[in-house]
Amino acid sequence: MTDTAQGTSRRYGTRPTMKDVAARAGVGLKTVSRVVNGEAGVTPDTERRVQEAIAALGFRRNDSARILRKGRTASIGLVLEDLADPFYGPLSRAVEEVARAHGALLINGSSAEDPAREQELVLALCARRVDGLVVIPAGDDHRYLEPEIAAGVATVFVDRPAGRIDADTVLSDSFGGAREAVAHLIAHGHRRIGFIGDQPRIHTASERLRGYRAAMAAAGLPVEESWVAPGSTAPERVRAAAAAMLEGPAPVTALFAGNNRVTVTAVRVLRELPRPVALVGFDDFELADLVRPAITVVAQDAAELGRTAAGLLFRRLEGADDPPRRVVLPTRLIARGSGETAPVG
Amino acid sequence: MTDTAQGTSRRYGTRPTMKDVAARAGVGLKTVSRVVNGEAGVTPDTERRVQEAIAALGFRRNDSARILRKGRTASIGLVLEDLADPFYGPLSRAVEEVARAHGALLINGSSAEDPAREQELVLALCARRVDGLVVIPAGDDHRYLEPEIAAGVATVFVDRPAGRIDADTVLSDSFGGAREAVAHLIAHGHRRIGFIGDQPRIHTASERLRGYRAAMAAAGLPVEESWVAPGSTAPERVRAAAAAMLEGPAPVTALFAGNNRVTVTAVRVLRELPRPVALVGFDDFELADLVRPAITVVAQDAAELGRTAAGLLFRRLEGADDPPRRVVLPTRLIARGSGETAPVG
Repeated sequence: MTDTAQGTSRRYGTRPTMKDVAARAGVGLKTVSRVVNGEAGVTPDTERRVQEAIAALGFRRNDSARILRKGRTASIGLVLEDLADPFYGPLSRAVEEVARAHGALLINGSSAEDPAREQELVLALCARRVDGLVVIPAGDDHRYLEPEIAAGVATVFVDRPAGRIDADTVLSDSFGGAREAVAHLIAHGHRRIGFIGDQPRIHTASERLRGYRAAMAAAGLPVEESWVAPGSTAPERVRAAAAAMLEGPAPVTALFAGNNRVTVTAVRVLRELPRPVALVGFDDFELADLVRPAITVVAQDAAELGRTAAGLLFRRLEGADDPPRRVVLPTRLIARGSGETAPVG
Repeated sequence: MTDTAQGTSRRYGTRPTMKDVAARAGVGLKTVSRVVNGEAGVTPDTERRVQEAIAALGFRRNDSARILRKGRTASIGLVLEDLADPFYGPLSRAVEEVARAHGALLINGSSAEDPAREQELVLALCARRVDGLVVIPAGDDHRYLEPEIAAGVATVFVDRPAGRIDADTVLSDSFGGAREAVAHLIAHGHRRIGFIGDQPRIHTASERLRGYRAAMAAAGLPVEESWVAPGSTAPERVRAAAAAMLEGPAPVTALFAGNNRVTVTAVRVLRELPRPVALVGFDDFELADLVRPAITVVAQDAAELGRTAAGLLFRRLEGADDPPRRVVLPTRLIARGSGETAPVG
């Protein structure tokens, strides 16, 4: 490929090129290239003319594949949801390893689950000239990214889909994994199963709730609304939700926890009970196999999510202009003990 | 304070100001301000003259306090060591919370414990105009940062000290914490105590080893060199190191693990043994209280490290020009069971 800017123009729109800068400054392309790349052999006066043309045209040197080819410091941005959620550790590291293999730096930021913050951070990273973005979205409307994508910033969504724009996306099978988790509890004799999940406006949380309901419906089991508790993953909220399901005339005999933050609190709550309550958690976590009983989980492959998303991003940066892809990775049920106990109570 | 650039010039050196740009472009200060802030009311020709002067002088709009005052999107960079080490989760989040309270974005990157990568990332963040940096250093020579600091990029080191430059630094008391951990094992009757730590070139690792030796010496106990195993925290390396100490004619009866990565592997190794071996880990970790026996640790306050470092950074960004500070935070021994067993074997 000799001109990536043209190669991707059908998909990402057009933007000023070095040729445009050269024409406006009245110099040759090689001279522009020297200025842009900080090389010697340009008089101060010529450099000023080129800089002026660059400013006037809004030229941005983010023709990423070219930058990557030349071994300059390219960078990609990763927008996470929560820096302290261990689920994102392996995902981030995998994105970084792929970036590094391509000679690019990774720059991260966190939206703290706030759509306005996500937008602010994404645009700040674009203003700081990242060549591409991997986004775990907090919001559900990403049209604000359209000008950046048109200007050539490749973008891949991971863990949750993009809203109102079409973009490469890598997800885990939250629906299928949740359905399998709940079917597993049903297979071990449970009929009254509670679900404690994250905020329902989060795609993964609503998909996991859908999976819970699908498994219950497939087994012909009714769902009491008091068994369903979507909301914050703060320990106090999870504790209160669990307490409500575990008390009363028809307490649940099993819990399905919608993510690792919920599971960790559920483990603490269940240890304090006099009777055993079965537990399956969505997401694996460190030491899940060492607590007693060891925790049965539906594991996502967080590293593979990151690796796949970064791989798609570099495909785009290297010029791929086929339609956006959607990759859904399977989950894996790991039976360790907590999900295989018979109902009590 | 009316002119932060001058206010900090004694400490951070001088750099081109908007006044210099105005003088060179032959326009008023208000015009430069309009161009720099993207406001209306400037003709295209004047804007070009200003942009030319900005380029020629190397003016950078990183007069941070002013940016923060005006509510523009300021940003600070955080350079971590490992994105997947849970110790850095609360630290990162605390830095982010302080940044957010100051209206600034946080941008992260990871050195993956590689000094060259650290330098590349720090300079890339500076080139992307962060207003300040919080650095968990991988390297031991930070003179490469001197031009950036002179240009006004406030810098604070956390978790490990800066090398060969003088800068604000926030550390945990690794020496004192390690000494306390080992003294605790000695107080419970242990005489043959092994130490498995991180690479000795890492400051925290060498300080913890020093603490181990100090506690042994204070108790008049000899240290067999086969009991001391600094190195990688990769599970295979930690497993091999533990196996070597736990076999032979005079096996250790207790282990002191130098950080949470080592501790987690040590927990797995010790569960496979027929006899109990006491364990104290440096760093607390999620679920340390739920495994059996629960794990005794010397806890650092990772969030407080981040909060303190970010606080010092914003002090500098707000104009403080007193000499660099060094803050050392205490650690806290949390006895949970694994460190209070008597020696066996």
